[in-house]
Amino acid sequence: MAAGVATFDELLQRLGAISDVEHAQYLLSWDEETKMPPQGSVARAEQRATLARIGHELATAPELGELLEELHDFEAEHERESFEASVVRVTRRDYEKQRRVPAELRAEMTRAGSLGYRAWLEAREARDYELFRPHLERQIGLTREYVACHAPYDDPYDVLLDDHEPGMRTVEVDAVFARLRDELVALVGALGAPADDSCLRGDFPSERQRAFALELLGRWGMDDESWRLDDTVHPFATSLAYNDIRLTTNLHPETLTGILSCLHEFGHGIYERQVDPRYFRTPLASGASSAFHESQSRLWENVVGRAISTWRFFYPRLQETFPQQLADVPLEDFHRALNRVAPSAIRVEADEVTYSLHIILRFELERAMLAGTVTPADLPEAFAGKLRDYLGVEPADIVEGVLQDVHWSDSSFGYFPTYALGNVISIQLWERLTSELGDLDAEFERGEFGSLREWLGEHVHRWGRAFEPPELLERAAGGPLDPEPYIRYLREKVETLYPGSTGRR
Amino acid sequence: MAAGVATFDELLQRLGAISDVEHAQYLLSWDEETKMPPQGSVARAEQRATLARIGHELATAPELGELLEELHDFEAEHERESFEASVVRVTRRDYEKQRRVPAELRAEMTRAGSLGYRAWLEAREARDYELFRPHLERQIGLTREYVACHAPYDDPYDVLLDDHEPGMRTVEVDAVFARLRDELVALVGALGAPADDSCLRGDFPSERQRAFALELLGRWGMDDESWRLDDTVHPFATSLAYNDIRLTTNLHPETLTGILSCLHEFGHGIYERQVDPRYFRTPLASGASSAFHESQSRLWENVVGRAISTWRFFYPRLQETFPQQLADVPLEDFHRALNRVAPSAIRVEADEVTYSLHIILRFELERAMLAGTVTPADLPEAFAGKLRDYLGVEPADIVEGVLQDVHWSDSSFGYFPTYALGNVISIQLWERLTSELGDLDAEFERGEFGSLREWLGEHVHRWGRAFEPPELLERAAGGPLDPEPYIRYLREKVETLYPGSTGRR
Repeated sequence: MAAGVATFDELLQRLGAISDVEHAQYLLSWDEETKMPPQGSVARAEQRATLARIGHELATAPELGELLEELHDFEAEHERESFEASVVRVTRRDYEKQRRVPAELRAEMTRAGSLGYRAWLEAREARDYELFRPHLERQIGLTREYVACHAPYDDPYDVLLDDHEPGMRTVEVDAVFARLRDELVALVGALGAPADDSCLRGDFPSERQRAFALELLGRWGMDDESWRLDDTVHPFATSLAYNDIRLTTNLHPETLTGILSCLHEFGHGIYERQVDPRYFRTPLASGASSAFHESQSRLWENVVGRAISTWRFFYPRLQETFPQQLADVPLEDFHRALNRVAPSAIRVEADEVTYSLHIILRFELERAMLAGTVTPADLPEAFAGKLRDYLGVEPADIVEGVLQDVHWSDSSFGYFPTYALGNVISIQLWERLTSELGDLDAEFERGEFGSLREWLGEHVHRWGRAFEPPELLERAAGGPLDPEPYIRYLREKVETLYPGSTGRR
Repeated sequence: MAAGVATFDELLQRLGAISDVEHAQYLLSWDEETKMPPQGSVARAEQRATLARIGHELATAPELGELLEELHDFEAEHERESFEASVVRVTRRDYEKQRRVPAELRAEMTRAGSLGYRAWLEAREARDYELFRPHLERQIGLTREYVACHAPYDDPYDVLLDDHEPGMRTVEVDAVFARLRDELVALVGALGAPADDSCLRGDFPSERQRAFALELLGRWGMDDESWRLDDTVHPFATSLAYNDIRLTTNLHPETLTGILSCLHEFGHGIYERQVDPRYFRTPLASGASSAFHESQSRLWENVVGRAISTWRFFYPRLQETFPQQLADVPLEDFHRALNRVAPSAIRVEADEVTYSLHIILRFELERAMLAGTVTPADLPEAFAGKLRDYLGVEPADIVEGVLQDVHWSDSSFGYFPTYALGNVISIQLWERLTSELGDLDAEFERGEFGSLREWLGEHVHRWGRAFEPPELLERAAGGPLDPEPYIRYLREKVETLYPGSTGRR
């Protein structure tokens, strides 16, 4: 065992260096999106590529494999939940997965991804899908090669899904999405006229929005000691350490929706903030998966951030911040506006009810492209067809259609489903935690969010990547992936906001 | 030769990676000083240490030595000024120097430097030199070991100087400083009463100072495409690439002196900005030395930034920015305040005339400590004695005395002289460029600084590290290091500002 301890320490040293290089990359990206002067972009691309290469070399070094080999007994001697066993287990999984992919294929995917991204931008600019099609074909070819590296598997899509949702199976996602699709299509079909959300538009100076957002997030758990909020074009959250959390936002003076993106990014931030500090500089020190991360951002943005109880506390403050715009708008109207449901062609603008349908159609198309039953040539029509069938909308043009998302330009197949899985998980967690904590509305109305934050910290956040998503879900929510809570939640919400809408047709 | 080209390309690839890692470190530091939430510091120290280690490994890799070995003929086939010969020459020099120092000694110096820095902070806090003394002893011991790695040498101090001023010799610096010391001591002794600089203090809101500084720096050559200006505690400049230049400042509302630090940092920034873009991602892509860098910051801060011609253009704008404070202050009074001369114990607050004396006394003490003729036990009194002899001032306590600077806490021996050498070089360059361009005052009065900027770009900046300081000085200023221009400049300045003061006593 003493030998094991020394070997484990050596492992921790190597993992520390890998983590440092990875977080330096995060800083290069954060700076690029928030601070870097525009001309710095060429140098930045080189800096990022070099650190990525170094990080990959460190993460696939044969010496790391040897240490893991020597640590089999050490791992077995420790509890599954222990720091030691978890570090070895997760490192082994990452290492074995990384080693399966030849460096040349990885380099080629990176190169094709850069070219694909540029072609996607040009195709959007020219509104010409054909400029993008050959790149998409190349992406699919490379993705199939990548999948083949991981044989055997039950479903080729399992390999892609596993990159974002370790241990999650396509067959499981497929069943959840089929159920969700049928329910959501029915719900959307029965909707009444959308709520009036004109009160969210007007003249809202950005600096006052920022001050309000910071006040709100301060109540939720953000502080100056370990967090920042900066401006960017496409909001994101990143963590340079569990105590160096960076949120970004894009506040436009003509609308209040930028504040909602702050609430979303806070969910990502608080997850990273509450990971067990002992996991620092190990592969455990991050959220469990894309879907788990999204479950946290959705929970804070939608379940808390669009709840009337939350706004009973914050709305008077928002009215004080923007008296000219909001003094005469009743809380109930503001709340309805925040929760407006209206099908549209654009995923990133979609509301809570229609959002998952955008995801489901992409998941279906990704699987079909991988199987070859939908070719890149067929894709625009297949995409538009599903938009029509599921949401009853027609894209205005190719940019509103299949060219709207970046994900298919740079080998990010397998990522889309995690957005909708995040919605599903968020409500599974919410049902569980309210069953334990009781109704939280009274606390929210008093501006208190500590019970919620602590429950999530205790049952989800602190575990970082120690457990794969299915196990973490079982532990935190008490069951496997289950769309029913989410369906109930949406039905109830639509019924409250649009009385009489949810009668099935 | 074709083989040489392929080998050279391989060298460039390796150098590119080294440069990327180095610039990622610069970003980690810049962010730490300007943006990072306070709690992020522990993680940041780890990230910086890891990148430093990786950078050192890359820079001392035996494969790099092999490439340099193979490139001897290739180098000889190219002109000395060429990109190819310069890259090989400078890389070889760096490589051979780095390889002389065992990794263990380097690690020990880093460790002792961290401990020394912390002890220095504690000693200042407690106003107790004895807390620092053992650490200084350790630093001197390690510095001697470090020097020994570089035998043979004419003077042990040559080794330390060479780290900051490649190719500069102690004997040369000693002669220049001896001459300078005698002149400056006489000049200081004959000074009249200091000018009234109360107009620089008052109520100057930081945001208006920033706007003014940015307007001024915009005239000098700063733009939003490739530069930034951020807040920090101790101002500095850094470059993440020739087109990603970061200046920092510390603007206090009660004084205008923060603006002068912007002008100083601009000098560093414009140097890096105007390095030949072809040097990008090679060891040539930076200023030639600490003294050359300082020569640029001093030239812009002092020679341009304290000139009455410059303020004939900018002062009316400054008055518009702060009408209540400055409307009634004549330009001449403002100018005299900017150029106030008054001996004090504190180096970083020193004026143009007394500054170099602070440096010379430190240079003398460093050499004496290295030789063992002044021991750490003697140092406080030796330091105070020289302050008395050269500047006629007495430090109020140990913190105003020998504990005022950080440099001796972390093995930065050899750095101090570069500050004064920068002053000397700045005026050598200024005499040369005004002899070629003619009097620039008329241009400055019109707010035009392009001729100056272009001359410096052409004769100094674009060459980066291609030539060592003595050669660059010969090329740009037409001679070796020479204190006479600087002495003439200071005498003239003092005579203008304090008529009758410069008669020798």
